[in-house]
Amino acid sequence: MSTETLTGEMFLGASRHRGGAGEVSGVDPRTGETLSPAYGFADAADVDRAATLARDAFASYRCTAPDVRAAFLESVADRTAAAAEPVVARVVRETGIAEPRVRGELARTVTQLRLFAGVVREGSHVGARIENPLPDRTPLPRPDLRQRKVPLGPVAVFGAGNFPLAFSVAGGDTASALAAGCPVVVKAHSGHPGTSELVAAAIAGAVAEHGLHEGVFSMVYGGDEVGAALVSHPAVAAVGFTGSRAGGLALVALAAARPVPVPVYAEMSSTNPVVLLPAALAARGAALGAAFVTSLTTGVGQLCTNPGTVVALDGPGLEEFLGAAAVAVTGSPAQPMLGASTCAAYARGVAALRAHAGVEEVAVGGADDTITSAGPAALFTTDAETFLADRALSQEVFGACSLVVRARDEGQLTAVLRALEGQLTATLHADPADHPLARDLMEVLEDKAGRIVVNGWPTGVDVGAAMVHGGPFPATSDGRSTSVGTLAVDRFLRPVAYQDVPADLLPAAVAPGNPLGIWRQVDGGFGRD
Amino acid sequence: MSTETLTGEMFLGASRHRGGAGEVSGVDPRTGETLSPAYGFADAADVDRAATLARDAFASYRCTAPDVRAAFLESVADRTAAAAEPVVARVVRETGIAEPRVRGELARTVTQLRLFAGVVREGSHVGARIENPLPDRTPLPRPDLRQRKVPLGPVAVFGAGNFPLAFSVAGGDTASALAAGCPVVVKAHSGHPGTSELVAAAIAGAVAEHGLHEGVFSMVYGGDEVGAALVSHPAVAAVGFTGSRAGGLALVALAAARPVPVPVYAEMSSTNPVVLLPAALAARGAALGAAFVTSLTTGVGQLCTNPGTVVALDGPGLEEFLGAAAVAVTGSPAQPMLGASTCAAYARGVAALRAHAGVEEVAVGGADDTITSAGPAALFTTDAETFLADRALSQEVFGACSLVVRARDEGQLTAVLRALEGQLTATLHADPADHPLARDLMEVLEDKAGRIVVNGWPTGVDVGAAMVHGGPFPATSDGRSTSVGTLAVDRFLRPVAYQDVPADLLPAAVAPGNPLGIWRQVDGGFGRD
Repeated sequence: MSTETLTGEMFLGASRHRGGAGEVSGVDPRTGETLSPAYGFADAADVDRAATLARDAFASYRCTAPDVRAAFLESVADRTAAAAEPVVARVVRETGIAEPRVRGELARTVTQLRLFAGVVREGSHVGARIENPLPDRTPLPRPDLRQRKVPLGPVAVFGAGNFPLAFSVAGGDTASALAAGCPVVVKAHSGHPGTSELVAAAIAGAVAEHGLHEGVFSMVYGGDEVGAALVSHPAVAAVGFTGSRAGGLALVALAAARPVPVPVYAEMSSTNPVVLLPAALAARGAALGAAFVTSLTTGVGQLCTNPGTVVALDGPGLEEFLGAAAVAVTGSPAQPMLGASTCAAYARGVAALRAHAGVEEVAVGGADDTITSAGPAALFTTDAETFLADRALSQEVFGACSLVVRARDEGQLTAVLRALEGQLTATLHADPADHPLARDLMEVLEDKAGRIVVNGWPTGVDVGAAMVHGGPFPATSDGRSTSVGTLAVDRFLRPVAYQDVPADLLPAAVAPGNPLGIWRQVDGGFGRD
Repeated sequence: MSTETLTGEMFLGASRHRGGAGEVSGVDPRTGETLSPAYGFADAADVDRAATLARDAFASYRCTAPDVRAAFLESVADRTAAAAEPVVARVVRETGIAEPRVRGELARTVTQLRLFAGVVREGSHVGARIENPLPDRTPLPRPDLRQRKVPLGPVAVFGAGNFPLAFSVAGGDTASALAAGCPVVVKAHSGHPGTSELVAAAIAGAVAEHGLHEGVFSMVYGGDEVGAALVSHPAVAAVGFTGSRAGGLALVALAAARPVPVPVYAEMSSTNPVVLLPAALAARGAALGAAFVTSLTTGVGQLCTNPGTVVALDGPGLEEFLGAAAVAVTGSPAQPMLGASTCAAYARGVAALRAHAGVEEVAVGGADDTITSAGPAALFTTDAETFLADRALSQEVFGACSLVVRARDEGQLTAVLRALEGQLTATLHADPADHPLARDLMEVLEDKAGRIVVNGWPTGVDVGAAMVHGGPFPATSDGRSTSVGTLAVDRFLRPVAYQDVPADLLPAAVAPGNPLGIWRQVDGGFGRD
């Protein structure tokens, strides 16, 4: 499908249908131009149809053989890659994200789908455990007990605005849910409706190609009411979301109020503290300052892992850091944010810091009146007392804005870190001489964040087996999970035990002889026999 | 500590203190006798002290080496075993549970503590994953990435009334939380306060013996207000509960309303459907009926896994089943229930079934006026239409009461199963000729229950690596977990990633050279090197 053939229609299984409950169009944030076509919003019947189809599809999709499910995911990857040119062009128009970044995000999205195909084939995610019977055990014999994880059921996925590919229609939530064996109903993000249609067509094509039940994938357009109807639908068994704290908490509340509550995996809000330790600052304060601004301004700061808080010991090294950072911020060109509302919220956040009596502006980035939704970088400082006294200073300003907190001593630095809310990431810059302090801080940071980075930057999230993109509340609504990396599949699974189930009734994952050849824990030891 | 030295005091870390906010005494349900001493309820300051101590203890306890933590759990096991005589005597007096069952439960509790010590030493529960760096990867090099799970923080454990040892002070929730590295604050169940004191003394003794921070374990007595204060305390990071649906849902609501919500693992309500398939019924209907009543009346029916719903195809086999079951029920002697309120609720549930126009009484167990809180077994039948039309008939009656649902054909049998709420267990009785139908039902039952039993009975929960004692709502508040078996430790853990963290700052679980010798996933493969 090329961008010329965009229809404005939703995907209800294999059917296409233009919604009649309102509409939205993409807007080029660089120019303010409205992009055609307009996308029709789903009504309650459309949402019900998508969710009911997903429930109907679950019975067969959950039982698909690993090779079938993996090949399906690979088809989604292939079809998404094949649509690269129209997809990239549309993303650039709908989001203003620079083309090289979009190409990188597309590659990441395709890689991620293939990674989850690999997860399905490898099979250890089902957590197969076998305890062979012990008929002579006293006082009671042990039965034959086997355990594996099964999919939860249909998953509602909310496309994210800031990653229109990697966290959207065929992004990490969708890929991990499909890998788990869960049908998916996407609520398309209104910021990139055309991109969503192009990617949805890739998924729907793969569903058809592999002869899967059409309800394995649907996608609807709409506002908050559509999202609420989807999360409240009895067929929905879990929710994946990346976005604002307010948006995530609204979904959590809806899911908890259902007659049968369901888990919500909402990735929401994080300022990703960067901690600069004294020896590192003394050795390379200026270099750190320049590198920090590169991380800060990546993606116009619209990344979940954007470094919005810096904590450092006051001193000459910090002055060098701030001097270099100020030069880099001042020299950073204006770039368009994702849209007008994002831009307005960013401007409000920056203005609040600027107006704060205890906060000092260090530098602000370049302006460009020809860009409708520009979000110039902004850097501020404050002292630890002020930071600790005003909770508002630790809240995320979504965009390329950061606040450097000066600590007087190690105790104050630790106090600032302990006062932080839950985070996706925490970064330490430390030279060997800093390691004694770093070792103490590791335990503080482990308790606050899902990922600890040393001598790097939080932006740039590798998609693999060991990644965690999650963290304690409010970074996410469920700190026991990750939305990036192979462990993400675990969000959509639950364990089932099989007691004395005859071999011909056992699922292959725990059947005698290990027909799937997967890693299993048998009587305590791991093996693939 | 013997029963003669019971004090009526709570445990606030290493300190003992008698609460002044009300009190409760144990009652012998066989006689109605009030048992001394009375136990003083905690006030808000006591709860705050216990939770704050737990938070203080977390910093060091979470870092304890596996051998230290395992040895501590083994000490709890040893000390509980050493207190067997006073503990068993007190349980019998406070609960009326027959002594052989109490001895079995004590053995299970001790075994369970040792099992979790083994989990800690074995180490695969931390889910260690390592991805070595790929400096030459394009377009971007891969950093060094390592992942392990860390404990959530202090856990509030609510002792259960029906398992005063295995699901109470040193039961599965406490053992798995301590194994995870989480301090525990127990709210003692008011049904067995003296038992709770004896077991708490064993834990507190082990804490002292191993030189752990006193806040690793506390225990408070109290009513709903104490429970609410504990769940709402900022230091509490997770909640474990086994009890009623109303009680569990109240805790879930409290936990969700916190400024920082926390997970609640509440095991609540299940009728544990038993499905009798035609060939099995035809071959051994009478034998199944007798065996069923043994399961039904175990523990006076006060087990989470009590078979409260039976679903079968109508026919001669079912009549034989019912005939044998009626004889067994009629012959079952009266036994005391756990207490007066449990007994009253059971009587109300049985009376409602008896009064139901569409329900027929099959048999009722023996009476005994000398027992204050007797709960005679009761067996009823109904047809599938009636069952499907009235949701009340699928609700748990806690005690030795069961309802046999007659299905006309396979379609109706399947419809009854699909209409059930989430369950801890589902049981199939099937002969080889039943396997084609059983295979279809397996998928229905997997979607409803945490454990599937074939040709056995749901009561009797083996404590091991492959057990699942959990299930979809309302069996539990979080169907992604189990409260029995080694996987229970996973409830109190969350993943953390370490990116480019120098070797001397890495936790041992993911350090180079695998100093703990645990199973780890390294670049995709499992190993212990």
